[in-house]
Amino acid sequence: MEPGPPGSSGPAEPGPCLSAQRGADHAASASLQSAARTEPGRHSLAVAAVLPAGGCGERMGVPTPKQFCPILERPLISYTLQALERVCWIKDIVVAVTGENMEVMKSIIQKYQHERISLVEAGVTRHRSIFSGLKALAEDQLNSKLSKPEVVIIHDAVRPFVEEDVLLKVVTAAKEHGCTDYDLEFGTECLQLALKYCRTKAKLVEGSPDLWKVTYKRDLYAAESIIKEIISQEICVVMDSKEDNKHVGHLLEEVLKSELNHVKVTSEALCHAGRHLQQIILDQCYNFVCVNVMTSDFQETQKLLSMLEESNLSILYPVVVVSVHFLDFKLVPPSQKIENLMHIKEFSKKVKERNILLYGLLISYPQDEQKLQESLRQGAIIIASLVKERNSGLIGQLLIA
Amino acid sequence: MEPGPPGSSGPAEPGPCLSAQRGADHAASASLQSAARTEPGRHSLAVAAVLPAGGCGERMGVPTPKQFCPILERPLISYTLQALERVCWIKDIVVAVTGENMEVMKSIIQKYQHERISLVEAGVTRHRSIFSGLKALAEDQLNSKLSKPEVVIIHDAVRPFVEEDVLLKVVTAAKEHGCTDYDLEFGTECLQLALKYCRTKAKLVEGSPDLWKVTYKRDLYAAESIIKEIISQEICVVMDSKEDNKHVGHLLEEVLKSELNHVKVTSEALCHAGRHLQQIILDQCYNFVCVNVMTSDFQETQKLLSMLEESNLSILYPVVVVSVHFLDFKLVPPSQKIENLMHIKEFSKKVKERNILLYGLLISYPQDEQKLQESLRQGAIIIASLVKERNSGLIGQLLIA
Repeated sequence: MEPGPPGSSGPAEPGPCLSAQRGADHAASASLQSAARTEPGRHSLAVAAVLPAGGCGERMGVPTPKQFCPILERPLISYTLQALERVCWIKDIVVAVTGENMEVMKSIIQKYQHERISLVEAGVTRHRSIFSGLKALAEDQLNSKLSKPEVVIIHDAVRPFVEEDVLLKVVTAAKEHGCTDYDLEFGTECLQLALKYCRTKAKLVEGSPDLWKVTYKRDLYAAESIIKEIISQEICVVMDSKEDNKHVGHLLEEVLKSELNHVKVTSEALCHAGRHLQQIILDQCYNFVCVNVMTSDFQETQKLLSMLEESNLSILYPVVVVSVHFLDFKLVPPSQKIENLMHIKEFSKKVKERNILLYGLLISYPQDEQKLQESLRQGAIIIASLVKERNSGLIGQLLIA
Repeated sequence: MEPGPPGSSGPAEPGPCLSAQRGADHAASASLQSAARTEPGRHSLAVAAVLPAGGCGERMGVPTPKQFCPILERPLISYTLQALERVCWIKDIVVAVTGENMEVMKSIIQKYQHERISLVEAGVTRHRSIFSGLKALAEDQLNSKLSKPEVVIIHDAVRPFVEEDVLLKVVTAAKEHGCTDYDLEFGTECLQLALKYCRTKAKLVEGSPDLWKVTYKRDLYAAESIIKEIISQEICVVMDSKEDNKHVGHLLEEVLKSELNHVKVTSEALCHAGRHLQQIILDQCYNFVCVNVMTSDFQETQKLLSMLEESNLSILYPVVVVSVHFLDFKLVPPSQKIENLMHIKEFSKKVKERNILLYGLLISYPQDEQKLQESLRQGAIIIASLVKERNSGLIGQLLIA
């Protein structure tokens, strides 16, 4: 599921290129490791992919063609492109879209910074679209950016959860079996089409249950939940110093760890010019809890937001930032603090434009140890809700634990 | 999807009994109407259902058997039972569960007030479980509550979206074809089992795409989203008076209508001893926006909460209540009001026990007409988020628009 960090993908080389990939998705990591073991030889093999994406999605029950339906505000096809781009040995990705969707597709490629993509006009059927894609790859045109591949992977635009190991199987099989008609009984005419019109190798390989297709509206719901789950696997607690073990940020970190069993909770300091934090951002953590204990209310949060904006982390997924503040409600009546913190609404509007979802959280800090634990636990529940739901309607709200 | 209101289902009679059903689910309503037209004769036909529910859900990737996995905190099997209970001409529902899950199942039946349910012990295979269920129905035992049926519907416990028209098809086919072996080529041995061991009629009928089975974790996600969507179809704005057209509640109602295209927005008054509101609750509206303009902050909301608690509406689904308050932030600094409204946290904890999700919403009320429209629009976005997500981690929060 996870691509390499934006901008770091480098040139496509057919061969192992694992160092750039490290994501929150453990399944993907596992498959990357297996890819390293089973990589089909170290020789260059020119691999391309064709994505027929000319469908109109009539079974979805929504007016938008399903490949353009938004998941967390990003079109489904962008997730599929991201999954293929992650595989650095796929040299070219040819997408077949209808003429009327050509501009939409171009803007998707630009907005989400997809690379190695070429567009061709889709045909009236899925097969004709595949044919158009194959033709573009097979043609020896002087002005073509595309290089003639030895193996072409034909992949549905509405199967966003394809993993590298399945694609590797495809390529391995193609290498082993050449253009043999092995496995044609699985019944796809696309293969015959590929064999007939293009002098390229093609073969059908069985996928995994994860390789499911988004067909109905319920599949779109499922895809959204799965994607939300994948990007909610890690939360980083950011504070001004990591040295002080009694730092309230560490207390919150401990409670988050015990409340959220399935989530990796880490912590980092904003000092030291934020070098470690930079690495966490590069490693694609999409959730940050920023603890503000300084005099100025949003000092830490603003530093973090600047780093996130510079990093481009939020191009593909919305990043959640919870700005956490503490106050002893018994010593200081919270009204004044609340009024000050309400300025978070303006910050949140600004960073929403960069796909960052900012929320405020004021946690009661009583002297009593047991009461403090309880308010930290309440805070952890709120943080978990915000990270899980990624609700853009509630940005800029100040929540109270 | 929708059952009759709890407690109003009455005795099971094989024949049309549509008056008690009216839900937010338009698909279900449509199927009820078609049922009225196509009801297979007005004669009594003894119909029962058997649900094999002994599976362990190994494909789900979670430790809980899938039929017991929670959706909005309620086990999946309860949704399936609800769908069958809605059909008043199904006289008995026999559920086959393993010995170790017998107590869990009993507590589910009690908690969600399911009726017409009998439990039998599941066998080691699905077929043996069906056999146990059929045997219980076929046996002439003096102390048995069950009456011998003429038609038995065998239905998976993990298909919660079964609709009455599909079940009606089953019964119609059974009536027309008797015990014929028609359609056996669709390939279920359950039928043969039924034919062999029980002198009851059985037939396999094709279902609709809605009759899908919860198999993988992604199906559980999809089911949750579908259920959330179904119960978010209607929002009722509750205010102290409906007569005054300039009432701020009406303004909010209008903005909700224009912001939420797919949602039915109604309004009701709490006065007149709340008779109309009682009807809306009986008609299973699961979302309320309660406008408080009286001196006492939560007067209206508390009246509404009492009505909801008395109604038992929230037994099957969590009910969302947004307590709305207005304040001109320019004339009155909001801090004091905010502090008063923070008491909503205590109310929300209390009503959460009754499956009511209570949130507070303070809307800015500027003199400027355009600014008022903008703050109402912000309020509508927040209300839409709360209704859509039904997030129990954020109950008792005071949100600000």
